[in-house]
Formats: sequence, C-alpha cells, structure tokens
Amino acid sequence: MEFTRNNRQLLSKIATNDRHGENSPYFDGWKAYDSNPYHPTHNPRGVIQMGLAENQLCFDLIEKWILENPDASICTAEGVDKFKDIAIFQDYHALKEFREGVAKLMGRVGGNRVTFDPNRIVTSGGATGANETVMFCLADPGDAFLVPSPYYAGFARDLGWRTGLDLVPVDCKSSDNFRITRAALEEAYEKAQRSNINVKGVIVANPSNPLGTVLDKETMRSLVSFVNDKNIHLVCDEIYAATTFSSPRFVSIAEIIQDMDCNRDLIHIVYSLSKDMGFPGFRVGIVYSFNDDVMNCARKMSSFGLVSSQTQFLLAAMLNDEEFVGNFLRESSKRLAKRHHAFTKGLERVGISSLKSNAGLFFWMDMRPLLKEQTVKAELELWRVIINKVKLNVSPGSSFQCSEPGWFRVCFANMDDQTVQVALERIREFVLQGKEEVDGSEKSKHWRKQNLRLSFSSSSRLYDEGLMSPAHMMSPHSPIPHSPLVRART
Amino acid sequence: MEFTRNNRQLLSKIATNDRHGENSPYFDGWKAYDSNPYHPTHNPRGVIQMGLAENQLCFDLIEKWILENPDASICTAEGVDKFKDIAIFQDYHALKEFREGVAKLMGRVGGNRVTFDPNRIVTSGGATGANETVMFCLADPGDAFLVPSPYYAGFARDLGWRTGLDLVPVDCKSSDNFRITRAALEEAYEKAQRSNINVKGVIVANPSNPLGTVLDKETMRSLVSFVNDKNIHLVCDEIYAATTFSSPRFVSIAEIIQDMDCNRDLIHIVYSLSKDMGFPGFRVGIVYSFNDDVMNCARKMSSFGLVSSQTQFLLAAMLNDEEFVGNFLRESSKRLAKRHHAFTKGLERVGISSLKSNAGLFFWMDMRPLLKEQTVKAELELWRVIINKVKLNVSPGSSFQCSEPGWFRVCFANMDDQTVQVALERIREFVLQGKEEVDGSEKSKHWRKQNLRLSFSSSSRLYDEGLMSPAHMMSPHSPIPHSPLVRART
Ligand SMILES: Cc1ncc(COP(=O)(O)O)c(C=O)c1O
Ligand SMILES: Cc1ncc(COP(=O)(O)O)c(C=O)c1O
Repeated sequence: MEFTRNNRQLLSKIATNDRHGENSPYFDGWKAYDSNPYHPTHNPRGVIQMGLAENQLCFDLIEKWILENPDASICTAEGVDKFKDIAIFQDYHALKEFREGVAKLMGRVGGNRVTFDPNRIVTSGGATGANETVMFCLADPGDAFLVPSPYYAGFARDLGWRTGLDLVPVDCKSSDNFRITRAALEEAYEKAQRSNINVKGVIVANPSNPLGTVLDKETMRSLVSFVNDKNIHLVCDEIYAATTFSSPRFVSIAEIIQDMDCNRDLIHIVYSLSKDMGFPGFRVGIVYSFNDDVMNCARKMSSFGLVSSQTQFLLAAMLNDEEFVGNFLRESSKRLAKRHHAFTKGLERVGISSLKSNAGLFFWMDMRPLLKEQTVKAELELWRVIINKVKLNVSPGSSFQCSEPGWFRVCFANMDDQTVQVALERIREFVLQGKEEVDGSEKSKHWRKQNLRLSFSSSSRLYDEGLMSPAHMMSPHSPIPHSPLVRART
Repeated sequence: MEFTRNNRQLLSKIATNDRHGENSPYFDGWKAYDSNPYHPTHNPRGVIQMGLAENQLCFDLIEKWILENPDASICTAEGVDKFKDIAIFQDYHALKEFREGVAKLMGRVGGNRVTFDPNRIVTSGGATGANETVMFCLADPGDAFLVPSPYYAGFARDLGWRTGLDLVPVDCKSSDNFRITRAALEEAYEKAQRSNINVKGVIVANPSNPLGTVLDKETMRSLVSFVNDKNIHLVCDEIYAATTFSSPRFVSIAEIIQDMDCNRDLIHIVYSLSKDMGFPGFRVGIVYSFNDDVMNCARKMSSFGLVSSQTQFLLAAMLNDEEFVGNFLRESSKRLAKRHHAFTKGLERVGISSLKSNAGLFFWMDMRPLLKEQTVKAELELWRVIINKVKLNVSPGSSFQCSEPGWFRVCFANMDDQTVQVALERIREFVLQGKEEVDGSEKSKHWRKQNLRLSFSSSSRLYDEGLMSPAHMMSPHSPIPHSPLVRART
C-alpha cells in the first residue's frame, strides 16, 4: 500500500506495515475471481472459485430445520416475545444454552470420548477472532509461535498482525506425507532460540488446512510432550473437526491429554461453526482453554468479538437438537466424502494426483510434474496460467508457506455438482493441451513429466493472458490497488 | 488477579496486567447487583440495576415491526430461501443494504445535515470493537490519547488494554458544566509532552457518557482546530447520537468539518446500534473514517469482529424502512425525555440535583453535599452505602475518572416505570433517614449540607452492611474472586 507522507507518520505501525498479508497471490486469486466470476449461463467462461473453504453441501437440512423450528428465532411470531431480552443480552459468558449446545457439538464431533465443559466455552468473532484472542493471552510482541507448514494463509494476519507475534514455520515434507515430526519441531525451536526469538508455543490446525489430513494420535502425543518439555503452549485449531469423512477418525487434543501426564495449563483449543456447520457469516468462534487464567482473560477479551445474541439464540436451539445434529453430521460427511471422491478420482483420470486425505473442504493437489523448475517462481507462473487461462482459482502452496513448490489447494465443497464437472473438464483440457503441445498429437497415453514440464514454458501461449507479471506477484511490497472486495480468507 | 507463578511467566503481559479494568468499584457494583438482583415480587429488597446504559423503552415498536416484516429474517418461511447465501456471507464490506441502512440512520440522527457514504461504513464488534480498531489504526503501544474526563469507564479497556495505548485525562470542571476547553486540552497535551508521551489524538464521546450532555458547535470547532494545530487525530464516539431528547440538538462531527477548513484525514467517527436502537446484544459497531487509509485498514481488521450476517440481514431491512426509523426515533426521544424528567424531578423533590442534560441513557447526579470530605475515598464510602444499604447500583464518578468527587451516574432507561418509583422511594427514604439522624426528628425542611455530611460518618449504622472494605475497593491490585457474571460495561 502507498501512504501519503502525512499518513505514514500519522498512523500506527500496524496500519502501515504489510502484515495484514493481503499483498499476496492468495488474495490476487480472489481478485481474479471477483472481476470475472463463473456462472453457468451468464458467464460460462468465468473463473471458478476453488479458493474458498466453504461447506455448502447441507443447507437443505438446515433450511428444513429452520422451517420446523420457528420458535428458535426471535424474529417469528413464535419467538418475538423474546426479542427484547435477547437484543439486550451481552453477557460475556454467552447464553447458557448456546454454550451447552456448542460443548455438546464439540463432544459429539470428537466421538463422545471427551466431555466439554460449557463453562469453559468462551466466544469470539469466528476462529479468526478466537485465534487472535488466544495469542493476545499467551504471547508478547516479538515472541513467536511455531507453525507446522504448509499452514492456513490467514494465520499470518490473524495470529501476528495486531499482536506483534512472529510465526516460525516448521517445515513438513511430502516424503513424510507432511507429518509433523519431533525432529522438525526441535530444529525450528533451536533455530529460533539461536536467533534470540522467544518461542511461546506451537499452533496446529487439526484437521489441517490446506492438507485435509487429520493428526494421528502418536503425532499428537509427541506434540504434547514437546510443549511439556519446553514449557510452552499448544494451540489446536479444530475448526475442521466435523469435516472428517473417512477413517482415521478425528481425535481432539482434549482426548489425547485425558490419558497423558502433562500440564493441561498449556493446552488450548480453537473452534468455530464456519466450517463444520457451514456458517462463516455468523462469526461464531470459540476459545476452549484448559488454563483457567487464559479462559478468564479470553472471556474479558470476548467484549471485542461477542457472537450476536440473535445468532446465539438460533444456534442454541439448533445445536441442542441432538437428533438434528447427529443426522446433519452424518449426512455432511457422507456428502463431503462423495464430492471428495468425485473430484480426486476425476483428476487421477487425467494423471493428476493429490495427497491422500480424509477431512477438510479441500485437497492438496500435486502439480510438481508441471513445474518448469522446482521454485516458488515456477509455481506462481503455473498458478497464473491456471487462474488466467484455465480459469480456476486454486491456491498456490507458497501462500501456505509450503516448503516444496508445486502443490495447490483445491476447495471442493463451495460449488454444485455441475460446477465440479466444468472444473474437471477444464483441467482435463488443460492437461491434454499440454500433451498436445509436447507431442503434436494425443497419442501419448501417460503423464510425461519432463516433456510436459517443458511445454509450460513462459513462451507457451498458455502464458499470454496474465493479469499481472510473476514479479509483481512475488513482491510483498508491490503496490496493489485496494481490492474492491476483501472477503474473509478461508 | 492472582496467577500461579508458572502462569505469570507463561502468559502474556496483557493477560497478567490489570488494564482490563475489572478490578474497580464499577465492576464491584455489578457483582453486588448480580448476587442480589431486584425483582418486584420475588426479591423486592434486591439491588436495583442503575449502572446499565440500556435503552429498553421502545421494544414494543421493534416487535411490531418484526411481526410485520417476516421477510426481513432468514429464519421464517418468507426468508429461509436466503438462509444459505446469508450464512456464508462474510465479505469484509458487509451487506450493501446494511451499510446503506446504517449510513441513512447516521444521516437522519444528525438531522440530515450531512450525508454519510455507505462505502465508508466499516463494521466491527460493537463500539467496543470499533474503538479498539480505530486505536490499532492510529497509535502504537506507549502512545497516548487525550480523553476529556469524566469519561466512559470502558474506555480504559477498550482503547488501551490490547493496543498498549495510554489515556491521558483532560480534566473538565463542574464550575464550567464540564465543558471541554482549549486551555484544558493544551494543558494535558503539554504535560504529556513534558513526560515524553507521544500524544496521537483526542477521543470524545458525544453525547457524553456519563454526563448526558451534547457538545456545542463551538466546542467542537475548537476541538477540530486543536487536533489540526497539533496534527493529531480526533475520534468522536457518537454511540448516543439518537438518545438526544431535547434541545440543543445533537451535532455530528461530520457536520462540523463540512464547513471548516481542516485536514479531514484526522477525523474519525465511531458508532453503534447498542444505544440508539437498544441492541447491545447484536454487537453492531461502526468505524466511519474520513481517512481512506484508516478506512481500508479498519476494514481489514473487521475480520476480527464482523457483524453476524444474520443480524446484518435483519437490520438492513429495518434500517431501510424509513417510515419505521423516523417513527422509532421520534418515539424513542419522547419516551427518554419523559423518563429523564420523571427521574430528575423526583430527585429534585428530595433535594438532590444533577447536571442539566438532554441526552444519553443516564444523568449525572450531584451527591457532593453528602460527602464527609471531598475525596475519592469518601465518594466510595458513600457509594458503598448506596449500593449495600439503599440497594441501588449507581456508578461512582471516580470510575469515570471524574476529577471532582461526589458525582454519580444514574441510568434510567433500563427499567420499567414501577422500578423507577421504587428507586426514587428508596432514595427519598435514605435522604430522610440522613436528616433524621442529624435532627432526631423530621422537622428539618431543607437540605442541610453540613449536618447531613456528618450523618454519613463511618460509624453511622448506614455503613455496617458493606460487602467489602473501602480499602479493598480502592486497591486496583486487591484479589477479587472472578465475577460469576462479567457483563459488558455500558
Ligand atoms: C484453520 C483455520 N482457522 C481459522 C479460520 C477462520 O475461520 P472463521 O471463519 O471461523 O473465522 C479458517 C478459515 O478458513 C481456517 O481454515
Ligand atoms: C461511550 C461508549 N462507547 C462505547 C460503548 C460500547 O458500546 P457497544 O455495546 O456498542 O460495544 C459504550 C457502552 O456503554 C459507551 O457508553
């Protein structure tokens, strides 16, 4: 961003630094989509949004429930007599029934192996607000948190922008299926220490955004041991807990520490209804800390991001309807599984593989064979082709701080079945075209890495429609005009 | 708060400092109320809550509108087809119709003398979140804002706790009707400079909480000149704009700068629907900045406190119904005027006066004649009597950083007419009892300052039911058990 000289001196460092993270390809992809969004009839050549971790597959169930439960809303004849009491309700503890509903949901999603205490539920403005709140409670400006990479692109802003924290990536490798190893944790920790950086904890998203995988118990135990040994915190962002759609099941950190000898004061969970229920607009975030002081402090901070009492009231009724919730969760994983299968199998048929996954609203697509060279620059060049030519807004691995170029996150639950088919068809064409460019024919039957790679050179006609130069996209300081639409990064 | 040694070192400075402001009489009053709330039949001797700036007088109008507009909700048969699109909506710009509705409301409340641009409306979690957001945009940790005192007790937390800013009070005097003078501003500014404190701006609530008065145009112009001369910011918290119920009318800072030659980049407005509409539970806060960079930065920060899209949708319809809004605002000021009159006249009849006011949901009661001595200690002693014996939770002036002891804020719009009568009766009894103690009889017909003052000595039987010692209440570091209910401070 460019500031007038007066503004640069008038405003805060936070306002004038770049740590909001919007000057990145991740956001450029959004802009490309926003300026030319796909529509089956009005704009069939538009960009398909596959950079949005939304869960749109079960709204029919929700809407049915809404119609059957008019008393769950304060805006119906059945509920309006509660309008006043709810409109003026701003207890930091949130509505009791709401907390109870959320605690039950969290327990159920964790397979009812742990009971969550409604009195520990602290509300916040989405997981975005919850993550920031936890950081404000745990660390001072200049302190750092370790974050296994690849990690959620929003973490940089959410965890670090206003708190002044630094994130230290813990590199995970494809050769290891991106598992978080103790060795990698130790290495990152020691490196930080050598640079005099005070590491206050580790934060992981489980299931992972962008990988779509769940942490196994062994890894989780090793994480707990690690933070115990160092006397630092472990924050588990479990926002995708209920999006797990096949085995292995999702295991909450709450279950792990149940039978471990560890300092529970170090363990904190972040949750939200944005993904599991598909309500990102409602801004329901949760901090669940096993540390009483953190819980009390987070509760005071909830004044900055309380959930609308209108929304609390509705969700209290919905989440306490156990039959509905059970059915919703079952149906939701079924539909996610089906969609995930359709998408990944469709890609496999044209020779594109992805990391084996069983959760989330996305998968991690392996485009390494298509890179000219194994660099972030080449990844972003390929990404530019995909977005401008193939017209799919997928997200490049570098926006998730992935240490290996060539991976892309593909979201699959924010569109209908027809759009999935269009997207798959575009990818198929793109791949075939690449093969044609190589062979001058379609006779090549299998994926031919080396040749394919050459075919996507910058002189290829596939590159000539770029909106921005790769150099532009690479520089975090390049002036990008304000986005007309700044949508939550998901 | 007491922390375990490990937690003191494990948690952040923010988590372990006292700047959340809850260890104050203001919050103790809440606790006293919460542990023994008044109810006309179940608990007629309970504490009456007069520490809560809520606007409960017009919910009949709102509820009628709700019933007439079922399509304004996504939870009715008429609106449910929009449920999905709204539940997934999380554009940082907020719903266009919602912004338009808010902008229209702000214009109307300002007497339609200025037009507010919907594109400048940035949403936040209540004025609480909006105020913090503005501070994050404008100042760095250690910087300061000048705040004319007495000022809203929540400012300390909202503006300073997580941002690391300091507040420098600008003392306003009763002899001057608590007007904000250029001289007082200059004095505070210079004092700060001498202490090497970097003053980044001035923040004022207009209408004032706790005074219930509106700023006159001349004072506002002088504020604008002051910030212009110093090249610092002016933030106007106009959350009580529409609670003005008699002349002089409310004037928005937007109107003032319209015909002034000044740097508009320095001017920022905070607004909310918590008071004017009476919806604190919905957490609707607004930042309206004339500085583009601040607006863009605040918009990025709105990710931490977006308004629930369910609530945006409802309010979009309500606020765009101009006939309804017009009628609501007229009726609301009428009822506020009536209530204010009943209350202040009732007090006058027993000899208690208050600052002349015409706005807000409270008035500023003058109890100086009842103080043993003109100190904060004496004020808190009197307050303890009022809360524990008279059983009214009014708020002592010291919680608003008032430089003169003996003033109390009395909220009047959060109760029904019967409760008002009970409260007035209790005050009357209290005053008469004081007189009796002095005279041994009721023959004294007029308020007898000196004697009355003596009668409230700490040996008086009026003092023997205190929950806490004054010393306890005075110390910001005294260990107070966690409040079972931590409600938003209003
Ligand atoms: C891992 C992770 N954490 C937090 C968030 C923010 O979610 P919310 O919408 O609840 O703020 C997201 C959204 O994509 C996410 O993927
Ligand atoms: C002057 C002032 N600003 C801000 C607030 C906070 O309001 P909100 O409920 O919108 O966060 C209040 C609440 O009392 C207030 O009086």
